[in-house]
Amino acid sequence: MAGDSRHPERAAVEALTDSFVAGLLEWIRIPSIGVDPAHHGDVRRSADWLAGRLREDGWPQVEVWDDGPALPAVFACWPSEDPQAPTVLVYGHHDVQPVDPVERWHHPPFEPVTSGDEVLGRGASDDKGQVAMHLLAVRAHLAATGRTSPSVTLKLFVEGEEESGSPHLRKLLEDHGNALGCDLVVFTDTSLHERDAPTVNTGQRGVLGGEIVFYGGTDDVHSGRAGGAIPNPATALAKLVAALHDDEGRVRLDGFYDDVREPTDREREDYASLPFDERVWLATSGGGAQATSGEPGYSTLERIWVRPTAEVNGLLSGYTGPGLKTIVPASATAKISFRLVPDQRPEKVEDQLRAFVAKHTPDGIRAEVTFRGTGVPPYAISPDHPANATVREAMELAFDRPVRFARAGGSGPAAVLQALLGVPLVYLGATLPDDRVHAPNERVVVPLLLKGAEAAAHLWRMLAGAGIAKRVTDESV
Amino acid sequence: MAGDSRHPERAAVEALTDSFVAGLLEWIRIPSIGVDPAHHGDVRRSADWLAGRLREDGWPQVEVWDDGPALPAVFACWPSEDPQAPTVLVYGHHDVQPVDPVERWHHPPFEPVTSGDEVLGRGASDDKGQVAMHLLAVRAHLAATGRTSPSVTLKLFVEGEEESGSPHLRKLLEDHGNALGCDLVVFTDTSLHERDAPTVNTGQRGVLGGEIVFYGGTDDVHSGRAGGAIPNPATALAKLVAALHDDEGRVRLDGFYDDVREPTDREREDYASLPFDERVWLATSGGGAQATSGEPGYSTLERIWVRPTAEVNGLLSGYTGPGLKTIVPASATAKISFRLVPDQRPEKVEDQLRAFVAKHTPDGIRAEVTFRGTGVPPYAISPDHPANATVREAMELAFDRPVRFARAGGSGPAAVLQALLGVPLVYLGATLPDDRVHAPNERVVVPLLLKGAEAAAHLWRMLAGAGIAKRVTDESV
Repeated sequence: MAGDSRHPERAAVEALTDSFVAGLLEWIRIPSIGVDPAHHGDVRRSADWLAGRLREDGWPQVEVWDDGPALPAVFACWPSEDPQAPTVLVYGHHDVQPVDPVERWHHPPFEPVTSGDEVLGRGASDDKGQVAMHLLAVRAHLAATGRTSPSVTLKLFVEGEEESGSPHLRKLLEDHGNALGCDLVVFTDTSLHERDAPTVNTGQRGVLGGEIVFYGGTDDVHSGRAGGAIPNPATALAKLVAALHDDEGRVRLDGFYDDVREPTDREREDYASLPFDERVWLATSGGGAQATSGEPGYSTLERIWVRPTAEVNGLLSGYTGPGLKTIVPASATAKISFRLVPDQRPEKVEDQLRAFVAKHTPDGIRAEVTFRGTGVPPYAISPDHPANATVREAMELAFDRPVRFARAGGSGPAAVLQALLGVPLVYLGATLPDDRVHAPNERVVVPLLLKGAEAAAHLWRMLAGAGIAKRVTDESV
Repeated sequence: MAGDSRHPERAAVEALTDSFVAGLLEWIRIPSIGVDPAHHGDVRRSADWLAGRLREDGWPQVEVWDDGPALPAVFACWPSEDPQAPTVLVYGHHDVQPVDPVERWHHPPFEPVTSGDEVLGRGASDDKGQVAMHLLAVRAHLAATGRTSPSVTLKLFVEGEEESGSPHLRKLLEDHGNALGCDLVVFTDTSLHERDAPTVNTGQRGVLGGEIVFYGGTDDVHSGRAGGAIPNPATALAKLVAALHDDEGRVRLDGFYDDVREPTDREREDYASLPFDERVWLATSGGGAQATSGEPGYSTLERIWVRPTAEVNGLLSGYTGPGLKTIVPASATAKISFRLVPDQRPEKVEDQLRAFVAKHTPDGIRAEVTFRGTGVPPYAISPDHPANATVREAMELAFDRPVRFARAGGSGPAAVLQALLGVPLVYLGATLPDDRVHAPNERVVVPLLLKGAEAAAHLWRMLAGAGIAKRVTDESV
């Protein structure tokens, strides 16, 4: 296969594999935990490492944006010689998740190891592996086509705050709008449905999270003195949380489903055709859950990809230590988050939750609702968008099999990038849902990253046709 | 008044006041926190202090029971010269509550201070103050009647584990049944309705506490990966907790009210005639609650005295730190306790809760229910019992005003004492509901303790009539 004349990109990727893996191992060694201020120096080192690597690879313009308040981001540009060629911006991030519970790792999280066809270490999959994959793709594209510059103008934007919720991304995009101008965004932080079922993602859910606190008295009260005669905020909050879903699992905020875009028949068919073993899914993505459940009329994949949800993330009230303390608690707190789908807007759901809380606050209880930031909007692009057709074709060339469209249940800055840059955004990644991202023993499957790099290399070649460039930019999302 | 010939007991009490207060201050200085093993030496010192005081007062038989596993208890006996006289056992406790939050005390909790007519310090009210009150009563009884031994045979039993839930009381009663044999128990750990509305308590609620844990998966799961498609144990538990009360506040365990004894019309009239300022009650007993609430058809006092309740004492699930963590928690815990009234039995309510949890555990959730011990049974004695008539008469003599019957919302070992000793149990105490017991700045109002001591001194005199003794022992509870 390596010498297959139809796939010079494949041969080029294979020739660069050793150097690719060595580079990835080096990068993982830098503990760039963005959410931990003690590691902000490492986030800087990680940005510098990436910038150095890009310069080694020949990128003519490489910058580390480190003028605050955002943690260091890396920007690079490699113009095409063809002034008609489209400009593609590859988005990724180089900050990584914390490593707790560190005792459950089989090796130190920042001393990566290779095992079989895997590289294990924090950030191997999310997102250093996939950013490195795109660097490899550019080298393979040049080697396979014999060019000295890419066939499209490539830009790379790798932020350092994605795991913190990209709090300064909007400002970065506004401050550097000119540098980041492009015709298409390729989003790297995404995964395949399964090892043997490659997919192209067409969207991510949004998220809105907040906290509801119910206050009763000013102090916990001995239940023998007042139990049964004053409102119990824990009971009241339980009634509110219970009312948040009907008995079948639908969310009961007034108007919650009004703006929800139903998936097309074509999308539902694609999702239904994907292999799905419920037992395996429960044991991996489901965290060992004993059964699936959720909104009636939708499959498990539809429930996590195209349906909005409300989840209780935490409850706290009264005494939670060992044994018993017979009190009526003074307050009760619920942390609640919503996953949103197009065309829901976080600010509208925020209003809906406030109205719901007001309606479910009984006499004698004072409610406080606070939101963490303004939420992340959902994003989706039609599978029929021409840019998606091109990505799928590139993926099918690399994976040698049919590629279907899918979605992601998680959230990311796709909608913000799309809205502020005003161009379509597509996904190209090659990691797996069971890579244990955000968990101990994160891994990445190297042969999949090589396929992903080959697909990207195909994509740069294919997008160079002026016709495609035009279609990419003209078509509405 | 001091010289009032009708009240030689009053003059006797007044003559002994200084020595009484000095002794109480001395006793409070011993930090006998029974729930804290670091203070078990102090519990022993407290028992020894009490035993020493009793010997000084002339009690002929004084023992410290310290043969384990119970913390040291004090037993004393002072036989009457009259072999026909009834035997009365006075019950109290000398262990005290912990002092957290210690920073909210205005003085060190074990360095008592006097302020106006109050003594402040941990244990001043609960229960050292009331045990000391009964010691004073015996001295006053002897001084007022000119006797060298009391007119009834008096026994004193002061345990060291009440604040720990009296875990070895049953064993103590079984081991020392002969010593403790009596015709009547007088329970000291009780309070008046208000300073200007003295009352005789006729019962306490029981208590049963447990913990319900709902398990979903084995790990918390990223809500983007599985949210909306697996059961959320926090949501499921909220639905269970919400179902525990109907919308009007009634407990919905099947059969919960079956064994509940309604108060008599006479009791309800007594309760209704007591002064009750809802605003003051909310600010003190209600812990600053903003409104009363509870079972329809009952007043606030009835809700806390004669109606059973279910209270959520604590909730814990998932992430409860600052900010947000978008997870589906692996488990959720509710601590729940019930206050019980005659003739409910803790073991029956335990079965009712297990059945309720089984009914409200959805598919995909595993439930665990554990109880802390076997609970404390409720206790009540009819206000019409002749022993109560005598206590009320003694109280009216001491307080110079009408005394009504009341109940206590809290729980104590009254039912265990009554059941194992096989005799009626009545209450005689003189503290106040707003003495801040179990809280910072516990206090006791000294003039009320003096009234209580006078009432007890009257009681010993009045009970000596053979007719009353007969009535006390013959009448069923």
